Amino acid sequence: MELTFLGTSSGVPTKTRNVSAVCIKMAETKDWWLLDCGEGTQHRLLHCKHTLKQLRGVCITHVHGDHCYGLPGLLASASMSGRTDPLTVIGPQPLEAFLNAVIETTQLRLTYELRFVEVTTLLQEDFIDADFLLRAHALSHRVPSYAFSFTERHVEVKLDVARLQADGVPPGPIWGRLQKGESVTLDNGAEIHGADYLLSARAPRRMVIGGDNDQPDLLRDACIGAQALVHESTYTHDVAEKVGQGPQHSCALAVAQFAESVALPSLVLTHFSPRYLDKTNNKNASILDIEREAASVYSGNLFLARDFEVYQLDKNGRLHRSGEVVVDI
Amino acid sequence: MELTFLGTSSGVPTKTRNVSAVCIKMAETKDWWLLDCGEGTQHRLLHCKHTLKQLRGVCITHVHGDHCYGLPGLLASASMSGRTDPLTVIGPQPLEAFLNAVIETTQLRLTYELRFVEVTTLLQEDFIDADFLLRAHALSHRVPSYAFSFTERHVEVKLDVARLQADGVPPGPIWGRLQKGESVTLDNGAEIHGADYLLSARAPRRMVIGGDNDQPDLLRDACIGAQALVHESTYTHDVAEKVGQGPQHSCALAVAQFAESVALPSLVLTHFSPRYLDKTNNKNASILDIEREAASVYSGNLFLARDFEVYQLDKNGRLHRSGEVVVDI
Repeated sequence: MELTFLGTSSGVPTKTRNVSAVCIKMAETKDWWLLDCGEGTQHRLLHCKHTLKQLRGVCITHVHGDHCYGLPGLLASASMSGRTDPLTVIGPQPLEAFLNAVIETTQLRLTYELRFVEVTTLLQEDFIDADFLLRAHALSHRVPSYAFSFTERHVEVKLDVARLQADGVPPGPIWGRLQKGESVTLDNGAEIHGADYLLSARAPRRMVIGGDNDQPDLLRDACIGAQALVHESTYTHDVAEKVGQGPQHSCALAVAQFAESVALPSLVLTHFSPRYLDKTNNKNASILDIEREAASVYSGNLFLARDFEVYQLDKNGRLHRSGEVVVDI
Repeated sequence: MELTFLGTSSGVPTKTRNVSAVCIKMAETKDWWLLDCGEGTQHRLLHCKHTLKQLRGVCITHVHGDHCYGLPGLLASASMSGRTDPLTVIGPQPLEAFLNAVIETTQLRLTYELRFVEVTTLLQEDFIDADFLLRAHALSHRVPSYAFSFTERHVEVKLDVARLQADGVPPGPIWGRLQKGESVTLDNGAEIHGADYLLSARAPRRMVIGGDNDQPDLLRDACIGAQALVHESTYTHDVAEKVGQGPQHSCALAVAQFAESVALPSLVLTHFSPRYLDKTNNKNASILDIEREAASVYSGNLFLARDFEVYQLDKNGRLHRSGEVVVDI
């Protein structure tokens, strides 16, 4: 599973960080999902291998501008690139009103069908994608906000040898056919089915990617079985105290404490207030302050996302930074 | 008068060119106007001296996304930068519906008043800005589209010596006071007023900046007294013929022929189809093709705009490329 961060700033873009957007896909496929679409997301995509033709769907966590104002332009450009396949957009109800109003008032003509899925339908049941099972999880913010979990659908299988032996199925070419999922007729005339003798070779990979949220604890259930959480960390604790509860964002300390409490293997922080500079000096707050705060309470694998970084969640459930998109102009 | 191009591509952004936006201001002031606001305009502005606090107003030529999808994000960022001064937005009626719908569906809270001016009110009378007189001019496109002319309001004055002599006002310190616009009592007891003895030292500068348009000739009246026209030149003539009349854009040939026919001193072409590459090779169409075509029929001062270029229209009415915004990350 592969993540590409296209925007890691909160509220407004900076020279180095755009507003929220992250791509998620299986490393071996070209089809992908987009989670959030701040203004300028399509500009970031010009530098990536991800194409608008191979975009399978878009999840929008909430309707604040820094998470969705790039969507109309991205939809328009998908049309201009000749897309005809329907596109799924999953988001809160006002997002549909937003899109419909923009489409109508600006006479946007899409060359493909837009399939809007109201996010609350995913609170109880999975959205079944070719590669993923998607589920939504309610968060706490000034407007309805959601996290999305992406669970890998296809995991390698292995033969249930104990059961084969218990059922007296002799080793040999039959085992190979069963492993391919075929049905086989035994010498005694009984028909047995591969599906009954297959076990998952490992746990499916699972990532949870949150929208804006001031109560990380709401993701306790969503994180069961997850190897990685991507969560906003707009402030450090002291700044969060000064800013007060109005904005309803999380600080690094709260997110890291939560991740530690559920023994989460990997945590990626993102959505940083622009007051935290990339470069450190003695005068200004820096991204390092956020990192230090989180690392002080979280013992897992900690990352602070930067724009254009690519991460891989490997089959062992280990997340690692695998590279960076090369921005050539 | 100073122009800064922030976007010179048509329809979709490319790696080197964003969608439409251009800043206009008097060289000596910090206040400025924005004409069109394609997605990503606020990102371009991060590299410029223009601030959202000193933005006096926005003119939108028409409601197609590549000319207005950056406006909601720019308005939001102006709020986040603490703007409290009212902001004027001039545009076609559907633009107001677009903005109101976006503001409502995405719960955008602006910290300042938005003053919408319906563009057709500027067809007959000037909008009076501190620096400019703005006028709108109807164009021909798939949706209602307009050009805006910016005419300098404050021109240096000189004394009307002939009239002073005819009225028997003797040379001396009195002339100096009249030139400052003061009222003066003569020895004979008559009061005379500076305003009655002042002439403009030169013609006011005037620029016309068009929106999308397939009939440059509609700007004939608007170009009277103008030193420069900024106009879309989406295609070369041959491509325009192939594409057909559907998109309702202009080719370089048509715009240049028009500019020549009205003896326009300077012409800036912009809004190029992404098929024209910046770099030339033997396979693809290039921006040079557009330049060659225009230059073949236009004998004035010809420019092909690039993102981040800055132009000055000097007091002699001569337009020249004065520099480039330095993009540092």
